[in-house]
Amino acid sequence: MTTEPAEPYGPTPRTKPTRSPERARYDRPTVHAILDSAYLCHLGYLREGAPVVLPTLYARRGETLYVHGSTGSRPLRSARQGPGLAVCLTVTHVDGLVLARSAFHHSINYRSVVVQGTARQVTDEDERRTALDAIVNQVVAGRAADSRPANAKELAATAVLRLDLDEVSAKLRTGGPNDEPEDLALPYWSGVVPVRQTYGTPEPAADLAPSIPLPEYLSR
Amino acid sequence: MTTEPAEPYGPTPRTKPTRSPERARYDRPTVHAILDSAYLCHLGYLREGAPVVLPTLYARRGETLYVHGSTGSRPLRSARQGPGLAVCLTVTHVDGLVLARSAFHHSINYRSVVVQGTARQVTDEDERRTALDAIVNQVVAGRAADSRPANAKELAATAVLRLDLDEVSAKLRTGGPNDEPEDLALPYWSGVVPVRQTYGTPEPAADLAPSIPLPEYLSR
Repeated sequence: MTTEPAEPYGPTPRTKPTRSPERARYDRPTVHAILDSAYLCHLGYLREGAPVVLPTLYARRGETLYVHGSTGSRPLRSARQGPGLAVCLTVTHVDGLVLARSAFHHSINYRSVVVQGTARQVTDEDERRTALDAIVNQVVAGRAADSRPANAKELAATAVLRLDLDEVSAKLRTGGPNDEPEDLALPYWSGVVPVRQTYGTPEPAADLAPSIPLPEYLSR
Repeated sequence: MTTEPAEPYGPTPRTKPTRSPERARYDRPTVHAILDSAYLCHLGYLREGAPVVLPTLYARRGETLYVHGSTGSRPLRSARQGPGLAVCLTVTHVDGLVLARSAFHHSINYRSVVVQGTARQVTDEDERRTALDAIVNQVVAGRAADSRPANAKELAATAVLRLDLDEVSAKLRTGGPNDEPEDLALPYWSGVVPVRQTYGTPEPAADLAPSIPLPEYLSR
């Protein structure tokens, strides 16, 4: 896992010619699959010329990502004005800890997507509502329809930004450790510890009426 | 979870006067605990004036964070020159999905740390070795001593950056949904779905000698 540049979304999948199991991918199915199986991104933008990276929720619809926030927050105020807000939106899944015989070849298995571009405020009311529903559904599929929709006051307090999937790349590492041939006989355990995000038993709110059952979409 | 500015590390803990369960924290024990229970960060910096956010491994030692990468990678080349590289390093744990009766109050429980500052290349050989060991140990405590240390060629190919914990803040949300009083009687399930990162059974490398047992530090 190293710090390498993102490349533009291209129609032709390209693969880095390397023996490393770390690969860049540009095809849409890979990019979409990584984005669709997460809900948290890290959003980077500039504040007074310096980079800022904050965790936030997002949703994908087609070739567009949406994020939301308070209308009073600084980046969202910036996106409303002028040419929009230059951002980088990154999503990362950790799939495994890769323990090689050598310290140097330690790594992690992961899947990440990096999207660069200009975020613009969404002003169309239908698109705003659709985007906000999508953000709720990205966290729990089916939840938006089973909650109270935003009212006028809530909608007025919420800014929605859109970022098109133009300049985007996926990067992933899979498989076992990549040890040097001369290290294979060393007496160190080598392999992968699988990592995943798991969900515990849903905990009802303290003030939830006992008559309300756990919804179907949470029984996963 | 909204996009709010980070504030400088201060000697006095401050708490935002709000009924929201989302809180900013600046005390060292909170910051250290969040940093010490993760190993992946999202590192933001500028490339040709635009923000870039990439996932990378890190380690904390005292009031300093370390990241590493190939000496040929662009951000690491930049950090070597002139005044260093302006970065923002963010670490986020997701602890729960917060389902409120209203779409608007959906959120997630999380703990995050945002560090802003200037990353500088580490040139001292002892500090470089210590930092690289720390990055391995941040992923799996105790692993660095049970692997082959980097040789001269590997050390020469690896750049190490340090970022001091000066301008840093933690932000976290805990607890149940924050519904409006008038929404409490709505017929929607409300509560929290706990989320955590879990580790599967370690998978030995295909070429691992059967005589090498699973180390003690992986039997967690």
